[in-house]
Amino acid sequence: MLFLLVKKEEKTLSSYNFSAGPGVLPSPVIKQIREDLEKEENSHYSILEISHRSARFDEIIHHAEDRLRQLMDIPDDYAVLFIQGGGSLQFEMLPLNLANHKNKIAVLDSGNFANKAAKAAQAVGKEATIVASSKQDRYRYLPELPADFDAADYDYLHITTNNTIEGSTYHQDNLPKTTGHLVADMSSNILAEPYNVSDFSAIFAGAQKNLGPAGVTLAIVKKDWLAEQKIEGVGPMMRYQSYIDKDSMYNTPPVFSIYALSLVLDWVFEQGGVKQLYLNNQKKAKRLYDYLDQSDFYQVPVSGEERSLTNVVFTTGDSDLDKKISLQADQEGLHNLAGHRSVGGFRASLYNAQPMAAVEALITFLEKAEKEHKS
Amino acid sequence: MLFLLVKKEEKTLSSYNFSAGPGVLPSPVIKQIREDLEKEENSHYSILEISHRSARFDEIIHHAEDRLRQLMDIPDDYAVLFIQGGGSLQFEMLPLNLANHKNKIAVLDSGNFANKAAKAAQAVGKEATIVASSKQDRYRYLPELPADFDAADYDYLHITTNNTIEGSTYHQDNLPKTTGHLVADMSSNILAEPYNVSDFSAIFAGAQKNLGPAGVTLAIVKKDWLAEQKIEGVGPMMRYQSYIDKDSMYNTPPVFSIYALSLVLDWVFEQGGVKQLYLNNQKKAKRLYDYLDQSDFYQVPVSGEERSLTNVVFTTGDSDLDKKISLQADQEGLHNLAGHRSVGGFRASLYNAQPMAAVEALITFLEKAEKEHKS
Repeated sequence: MLFLLVKKEEKTLSSYNFSAGPGVLPSPVIKQIREDLEKEENSHYSILEISHRSARFDEIIHHAEDRLRQLMDIPDDYAVLFIQGGGSLQFEMLPLNLANHKNKIAVLDSGNFANKAAKAAQAVGKEATIVASSKQDRYRYLPELPADFDAADYDYLHITTNNTIEGSTYHQDNLPKTTGHLVADMSSNILAEPYNVSDFSAIFAGAQKNLGPAGVTLAIVKKDWLAEQKIEGVGPMMRYQSYIDKDSMYNTPPVFSIYALSLVLDWVFEQGGVKQLYLNNQKKAKRLYDYLDQSDFYQVPVSGEERSLTNVVFTTGDSDLDKKISLQADQEGLHNLAGHRSVGGFRASLYNAQPMAAVEALITFLEKAEKEHKS
Repeated sequence: MLFLLVKKEEKTLSSYNFSAGPGVLPSPVIKQIREDLEKEENSHYSILEISHRSARFDEIIHHAEDRLRQLMDIPDDYAVLFIQGGGSLQFEMLPLNLANHKNKIAVLDSGNFANKAAKAAQAVGKEATIVASSKQDRYRYLPELPADFDAADYDYLHITTNNTIEGSTYHQDNLPKTTGHLVADMSSNILAEPYNVSDFSAIFAGAQKNLGPAGVTLAIVKKDWLAEQKIEGVGPMMRYQSYIDKDSMYNTPPVFSIYALSLVLDWVFEQGGVKQLYLNNQKKAKRLYDYLDQSDFYQVPVSGEERSLTNVVFTTGDSDLDKKISLQADQEGLHNLAGHRSVGGFRASLYNAQPMAAVEALITFLEKAEKEHKS
């Protein structure tokens, strides 16, 4: 499926959605879905009504896998799996499937979701050691792997590449260096910037930020590592091997979500792939960070190379004023700018599908708010 | 959301989809989805792009719950939960959450899915006893609870109300009588015929037959029974309590699937609720069974009261001929009539959204095939 009208989405709209997820999807994808539904409306055979055993869906799911392998340059010895349950279910599946030698994982506690992953591993009966944390400093920077970290003590090291709530990122060039297995939650920056898949033993991502609507989760797992595991007391739906054996169709998969995801992947390809989107995302984020940095009204808690391209977190330093300005933004068509309830402030999510025009509209608004509220 | 054009779907189409699931949805629902997407197409705010924390989604998910409580007359002491992973994940969640006193469940092995449920319970470390089975007779009838069944030996008795593959049903008036907890997989006949929720301690159903597109699963759980359980070594995503505590939003739910489900529930309500759909379904099934019974070319393996309203299973007795006729049907616009690969033959799925016109078209075709192939 190729989209010929990709430039159209850059037009200025009256409102923008800065939601951290589920968030904005590419306009040509929404259009394609609507057109497909229209075409199929009286067929009893729309994408919402077809069997996962149908030839049409078989083509969709395999196309999605092939496209993703191409976009991320995924080596053949990694399985590409489509699972339900979101990142939170992966927090449980990962240790159940892949922490069976030491029954112990290491976690770099860089934000709320890394912390949740550690707790989930413990809930399923594994040991989870937080080897470094920036929690005491409100996650304003990325914790560094301690010099005495010994990978041999753990089944794997879990990281969150992009901290959606806190606005910080382990980019490819500041990934922690471990001699052991590295597992990454890429939910909020997959396909938004490049990573070398072979630096990881497993990667997962909920779709609802850069991959498609909510309802499907991607897992990329190194097959020989999985094959080494002795997994006990785990049901078939919680085993990666069940998804590998049945091409992600051990049971009925979320047909529509995978179809929508395949359209998003085609859109990414048409944009020029991850390389081009990375350039776009750098440009969008730089424009906003540059504005925020030159202002003495707004502050960005995260600094330098650690800043996220996809979730720009900032504040006036006055939580009441932050709330007031977020509400004002909402009234003016700039929606969902309030930061996560755990941190407050502002968060502008600039996922792949967010157009530069949204950034420009936001800066215009922030300038106005600064003038109005600066004492 | 009320549908004013409900009668329209009864018009004769050129093709019908007899898929056992994902299967046919009500035409007005597909239309509504397409119209909503069209309206929202350039908003960056379509149903595919909104946060589950948005006011709009909050209204959708609560409306869905309220509507379902109304349609099924669900008592207040039951939780209504929307989960991902399909019936197969429920096969694992149920014993993990609700089989913690005896660590043992009883299963009436009435078909492929009941059998799978027993195996999944064992995979998660519980004992699963098949107390009666019709497997040796190819599941052509429903196994009966043995006279010496002692409910006190088990945490619960698991049944599949409708055996999707085999075409048999424990209707409300032939439910097994147990003094203990009864748990039902209603994936393929929920809302298609009436059940008294209070006869069960838990009910679950994948959406993709009578509730909506694939991607969401309904669970109805008696809260005080859950509260009695001592659950250990189970992660938050696999605990019903997490979904109860957070109104099914412990993590990002499948927003679109729940929206579509809420439209289907409104459609059911508009049709006159379960009572009216039950009448329609009886009429559709009777028309087809009557035709098949009078024919000496086709046979229905399941007999009498045990027959399914939603999955009509039949055969010519010659598997090669069955395949040939299914292919012929497909070419003439009657799709997905082949029986499940494990049983062969034919299966016509007549879910709520399947119009009577589909049954008439099918009978016309079957008459023609009978004339052509009868030796």
